[in-house]
Amino acid sequence: MDVSKIKNPKFLKKMSVNQMTDLAGDIRSFLIEKLSKTGGHLAPNLGVVELTLALHKIFNSPTDKLVWDVGHQTYVHKILTGRGDRFDTLRQFNGLCGFPKRNESEHDVWETGHSSTSLSAALGMAVARDLKHEHFNVVAVIGDGALTGGMALEALNDIGHQKRNLIIILNDNEMSIAPNVGALHNMLNRIRSANKYTRAKEDLEYLMKKIPAFGGKLASVAERLKDRLKYLLVSGVFFEELGITYLGPVDGHNLNALIDNLNYAQKRKGPVLIHVLTQKGKGYRPAELDEIGTWHGTGPYKIESGAFIKPVAAAPAYSKVVNDILQELARKDKRIVVVSPAMVVGSKLEGFAKEFPDRLFDVGIAEQHAATFAAGLATQHMKPVLSIYSTFMQRAYDQILHDICRQNLNVVIAVDRAGLVGADGETHQGVFDVGFLRSLPNLTIMMGKDENELRNMIFTALRYDQGPIAVRYPRGNGIGAVISKSPTEIPIGTWEILRDGHDASVLAFGPMLQPALAAAKQLEGEGIHLKVINARFIKPLDERMLSELAEQEAPVLTVEEGILAGGFGSSVLEYMHDKGFHNLIIERMGIDDCFVAHGSVKELLASVGLTSERIGSKIKSMVRMKSGKNKIRRVITS
Amino acid sequence: MDVSKIKNPKFLKKMSVNQMTDLAGDIRSFLIEKLSKTGGHLAPNLGVVELTLALHKIFNSPTDKLVWDVGHQTYVHKILTGRGDRFDTLRQFNGLCGFPKRNESEHDVWETGHSSTSLSAALGMAVARDLKHEHFNVVAVIGDGALTGGMALEALNDIGHQKRNLIIILNDNEMSIAPNVGALHNMLNRIRSANKYTRAKEDLEYLMKKIPAFGGKLASVAERLKDRLKYLLVSGVFFEELGITYLGPVDGHNLNALIDNLNYAQKRKGPVLIHVLTQKGKGYRPAELDEIGTWHGTGPYKIESGAFIKPVAAAPAYSKVVNDILQELARKDKRIVVVSPAMVVGSKLEGFAKEFPDRLFDVGIAEQHAATFAAGLATQHMKPVLSIYSTFMQRAYDQILHDICRQNLNVVIAVDRAGLVGADGETHQGVFDVGFLRSLPNLTIMMGKDENELRNMIFTALRYDQGPIAVRYPRGNGIGAVISKSPTEIPIGTWEILRDGHDASVLAFGPMLQPALAAAKQLEGEGIHLKVINARFIKPLDERMLSELAEQEAPVLTVEEGILAGGFGSSVLEYMHDKGFHNLIIERMGIDDCFVAHGSVKELLASVGLTSERIGSKIKSMVRMKSGKNKIRRVITS
Repeated sequence: MDVSKIKNPKFLKKMSVNQMTDLAGDIRSFLIEKLSKTGGHLAPNLGVVELTLALHKIFNSPTDKLVWDVGHQTYVHKILTGRGDRFDTLRQFNGLCGFPKRNESEHDVWETGHSSTSLSAALGMAVARDLKHEHFNVVAVIGDGALTGGMALEALNDIGHQKRNLIIILNDNEMSIAPNVGALHNMLNRIRSANKYTRAKEDLEYLMKKIPAFGGKLASVAERLKDRLKYLLVSGVFFEELGITYLGPVDGHNLNALIDNLNYAQKRKGPVLIHVLTQKGKGYRPAELDEIGTWHGTGPYKIESGAFIKPVAAAPAYSKVVNDILQELARKDKRIVVVSPAMVVGSKLEGFAKEFPDRLFDVGIAEQHAATFAAGLATQHMKPVLSIYSTFMQRAYDQILHDICRQNLNVVIAVDRAGLVGADGETHQGVFDVGFLRSLPNLTIMMGKDENELRNMIFTALRYDQGPIAVRYPRGNGIGAVISKSPTEIPIGTWEILRDGHDASVLAFGPMLQPALAAAKQLEGEGIHLKVINARFIKPLDERMLSELAEQEAPVLTVEEGILAGGFGSSVLEYMHDKGFHNLIIERMGIDDCFVAHGSVKELLASVGLTSERIGSKIKSMVRMKSGKNKIRRVITS
Repeated sequence: MDVSKIKNPKFLKKMSVNQMTDLAGDIRSFLIEKLSKTGGHLAPNLGVVELTLALHKIFNSPTDKLVWDVGHQTYVHKILTGRGDRFDTLRQFNGLCGFPKRNESEHDVWETGHSSTSLSAALGMAVARDLKHEHFNVVAVIGDGALTGGMALEALNDIGHQKRNLIIILNDNEMSIAPNVGALHNMLNRIRSANKYTRAKEDLEYLMKKIPAFGGKLASVAERLKDRLKYLLVSGVFFEELGITYLGPVDGHNLNALIDNLNYAQKRKGPVLIHVLTQKGKGYRPAELDEIGTWHGTGPYKIESGAFIKPVAAAPAYSKVVNDILQELARKDKRIVVVSPAMVVGSKLEGFAKEFPDRLFDVGIAEQHAATFAAGLATQHMKPVLSIYSTFMQRAYDQILHDICRQNLNVVIAVDRAGLVGADGETHQGVFDVGFLRSLPNLTIMMGKDENELRNMIFTALRYDQGPIAVRYPRGNGIGAVISKSPTEIPIGTWEILRDGHDASVLAFGPMLQPALAAAKQLEGEGIHLKVINARFIKPLDERMLSELAEQEAPVLTVEEGILAGGFGSSVLEYMHDKGFHNLIIERMGIDDCFVAHGSVKELLASVGLTSERIGSKIKSMVRMKSGKNKIRRVITS
């Protein structure tokens, strides 16, 4: 059937399993075809086709609440709830969001981009239902990777305690984003392989049947043991110990088995976990064969070959630059180790992982543990590099504050995907970290103007031994800077003048230097000489250069790809007023008080006004203001 | 013996268990006596006397690393490592810290005040040891309450996976700060009560001994089952499932048992967890009888009666005021529910808990879950109040951002202990939240000038339905304001002028209004008329009032009991420059870029310069600057 014409999931109620199997095929073809053009999270969605069909057959969304963890697995749900016709716009500016959006559909009851939130949210919904004496099902779908996130485990603890009616689908695909790690994963793996358990279970049943025949004490002891042993022998003892009924494992591509288990779970009292085994990428050979997560989220590709259609990048990715310099330096310094919360592939650390398997720690989706584990390493004089996406670092805020900065430990935080990230949208933009990091005592924060400076910064950070350092770098590729063979150290707290000028100054860092330089060039033609400063240290500020700017009395514009409130520009205002420079024209450009949706980075920058044109016009108005021609300026007549 | 003369723990090596038992008694008497004067965490420390003695007997600190979770349980450790002579200064300004401090002793290898960090840190130390081919033991001591913190569970997952030599002491006292909750607690409780397990274990052993006598298939099946069943029948199957060897439960007041188990654990390969049962408050009757956590952390008390010596407060505690208004409002509005991460007693929510047991959710030490659980409740149109200490809210930063603010859900965040908290010191000061909250889109933030305004704010927040609201309030008691019977709504984003004046203005909120008013009174005598504004909305700012201030052109001083970088004062600077008021004299007072140690709040305020005297002198210099008499001012000659 033409799945783009589906309006809502009600039609599934009347469908036979055979018909649903056909529909599953149609949905897979649709996804493979559509995503070959737009890109997107192909493999996770191919893995949950049958599961999503079964959920929408058994439950009545939106009365029943379907809560999807790490929402990138909701494409099938989006198709079944009437959004198939918008898949050409997936993850594009003003197009269909790649994650659940409450304003897109009443079937999206919970939004998420960060993992491990579904269980807490679902419990909240279940409690609200009970307090209001309402009756509906709450179903959370969580992956085995997301389950290791601390907040999911906190929620399991509360769910087992509260005993509300709540269904947890553990979507176990043995691979969340990258191959999973951790003891929980090993445990699930044992269940998957099952031999030990099944054998023991069969043996026990045999024994229990036989023993009563012998009569006497033996029989009564055996009888008493029976319940306890049966309980202990079910596969999901870990969950049962927490008070959660375990069902499974269930083949996640077998519609009959899924439907049976969902029906059964619906009738059970209390929390139930159904352990569903799925295959990521199911139905598309290149994705099925993927072992490292390449097909987790992709750009456009050729359907037949599975080859990615990627514009050839002139410059290396920033992440790769970081990996390479870390590899180089680690060869000479054994103390260098890398900690990654499940982002080895995302942060392009495969090279380091391959060369130094004993010194790369993928701790799973566990940002809090990752940060404090790095802190623990630092107490023993190792040189840990915590590689973490800006947006996921939000999860480790307290650990960076309480454990790393407060103890002033030498941890290098490699802040990947700092700034706007594009198609992943508002849950993933790395626009808050400058604000929340710069208020932390003892922390140094920097961002390079290009890939070569980024190398120098990682080098500098690993030589620095006075406390923690965060080195930010953007998603995507460098600007094509020449990479010098030997990295050089950058004096802490020093900025550099990239272009001189006396009419006004712009302070920017990272990718924002490009539009600033373009604006300067443009303004030159109009007779305005703009100084462009590479404010590569966000903290500490280059106080000497700031004082010089203040003495020169020309207007100062700060430009940052982040939230304005409390950001870098704000720190410049603070410095100037603290030092008594109370009457300088200082303005700030950045992201206003809002969340930035999905789209290409270029589109997003334009939408928030971070372009060379806007920089140019802002500078012009400031220069006019300075020369008193602009009536907006309020002048104190002192 | 005189425990205040102990220099280091080496003497324990030669001590007999009998001698150690005597010493335990001496240490208890010492703690009960010293803390009766200084106050402190009495009950937790009385519970770990034997455990700490055994640890220092078996291990060689500081070569072996002892990592204490929630460091308030380290008093005995401090005594044994030569700090008994400083207990008169415990938790006082410039005195002995109530938590481990690396600069106090080489035996303090890890600092902590927030819970659940020990396992990650210990694993980091163990990994560093292995990479450097060194040999020492790493021992983490974690309570049953702290174990439910998400990051501890993340760490368990990694520890079970990495299989390093590491000893975890699970100090199970059935009560961390308040009575524990959650499924993990229930599980530990089952082990404590033990009947089921012990019985099953005994039954199994009987069965296994008997069956081989029958021979044949039955015997071989039984033989095969044996290993598996034994494994399943150990008490700590939850931990064993995660790959961690479980020992216990061990009586935590039996030195022989503790020593035996520590010795055995030291010889085992891989991670070992020793489940130690202790009694909080052991050896001091009033603390032993405590059921709700009153003796967890105390002020001074009378030793004989156990009566607390507390100056009679003229005004109610802010926390109690919040509890009371919530109780009042909850009677009329069934949608109001309260979520607390293990701080029901700390936040004085007992009244609400008693009247509405079904609507108060103590989720354990699990701030992340607490926040997102509240968000889930809000999606179903409940009115959740997330009651949380400012410092612990740091753990829920991402959940407040990603789940609450991004989805713009109506969650009221009652931010308890906002500002300086005093004796708990640098791990507990609530001085970062203004900065990290105000950069979050959709969030409203307020703080009342007194207990009556706080009531009105909670009332206002629960009526507001346009998004999340944070209401901050300090630790300690109100200022004695008259409490009006019916709370009134405060228009969002409005400040109030508490005292008029035209020479300068001070903007402050919460407790900082008191020194501001005192300064104004003082300045009046010197002919300077200071306007004092209650900036009760930290976000949104009162833009009308700010514009009026700008037009009046008098100097503006902001005062806040929080970190200056990115704080409230910074938001005033941002506003003024954004609106083109580029030449106002604006200065900020608050806490500089540092962590604030322990002491009384008064001493701490003086140490960071937040006093009426400093406000007065700052205003005077600003007024001089304005009138051009102060050469510090740089004037742009435009």
